[in-house]
Amino acid sequence: MSEQRTYEVAGMSCEHCVAAVGAALGDLPGVERVEVDLAAGRAAVTGVQLDDAAVTAALAEAGYTLA
Amino acid sequence: MSEQRTYEVAGMSCEHCVAAVGAALGDLPGVERVEVDLAAGRAAVTGVQLDDAAVTAALAEAGYTLA
Repeated sequence: MSEQRTYEVAGMSCEHCVAAVGAALGDLPGVERVEVDLAAGRAAVTGVQLDDAAVTAALAEAGYTLA
Repeated sequence: MSEQRTYEVAGMSCEHCVAAVGAALGDLPGVERVEVDLAAGRAAVTGVQLDDAAVTAALAEAGYTLA
């Protein structure tokens, strides 16, 4: 069953960052949907068997960190 | 003969912006090289028959303006 987790993401400064974070998280196994809120600095991930460590690693690879 | 012109670009906030501005200006006719300085907010364009109006239009299309 799908669940949603919200992550506080540091370092997003523009719509390019939103796209980069969305793409990085959207490629993870089990992820069905990603909604990135630039103003709030948050990414909401919906999917199955979400893996916080994989999220953290994907963000790091894209140049961002959890706030 | 090549010349270089430097433009003050407003709105670049991250390395994605640097890449977007570089790609937008690099695609213009006559442009041989683009160097974008994020910290300074400047793009130096080297090429032949440079067209300031085309530079302005390309920046606008990419979401940036001349400062």
